[in-house]
Amino acid sequence: MATLLQIDFPFGGPFGAEMAQALDGLARSINDEPGFLWKIWIENAATGAAGGIYLFADAASAEAYLAKHSARLEGFGISDIRARVFDVNPALTALNHGPLS
Amino acid sequence: MATLLQIDFPFGGPFGAEMAQALDGLARSINDEPGFLWKIWIENAATGAAGGIYLFADAASAEAYLAKHSARLEGFGISDIRARVFDVNPALTALNHGPLS
Repeated sequence: MATLLQIDFPFGGPFGAEMAQALDGLARSINDEPGFLWKIWIENAATGAAGGIYLFADAASAEAYLAKHSARLEGFGISDIRARVFDVNPALTALNHGPLS
Repeated sequence: MATLLQIDFPFGGPFGAEMAQALDGLARSINDEPGFLWKIWIENAATGAAGGIYLFADAASAEAYLAKHSARLEGFGISDIRARVFDVNPALTALNHGPLS
């Protein structure tokens, strides 16, 4: 079943177009991760935070990516990473047009 | 610009089909919220947590819904609600097939 992974952490920037330019290669590499379906990149310049909402094909893929990505973030000097893995409720999500593929 | 709202909280159940049955009416009502685009319902029976990932058309709609929904959750006796509002990074999200409509 599709598994949702949410990750966020304190982040001082860059945001917006400058972030997109800096992380273009990373984003492209994520498409090759096993079980990866999509990622919404999230950022909040006002509160100083960033992260991602990911959908994976199954929990094992999400957990494997989380371990890899957490180590990468820590390598960037990022700490206080909050990550949570969730099942989705398909019936309720369908009622609210939530994208699960 | 599309605004992402993530909400999660400790939750003892029901989960799955039983949750879907209990909250069918609530889910349908959410479709009528101003600026609402979609919600993915998230749950984790193992850790005892639930919540939602929402996309709204703009930040004002997301903030208004968050105020309304937080009060409703507290009315259900739910506490320790974690909620965060984020901008999305459209360029990076497009690279990773993230759904923004």
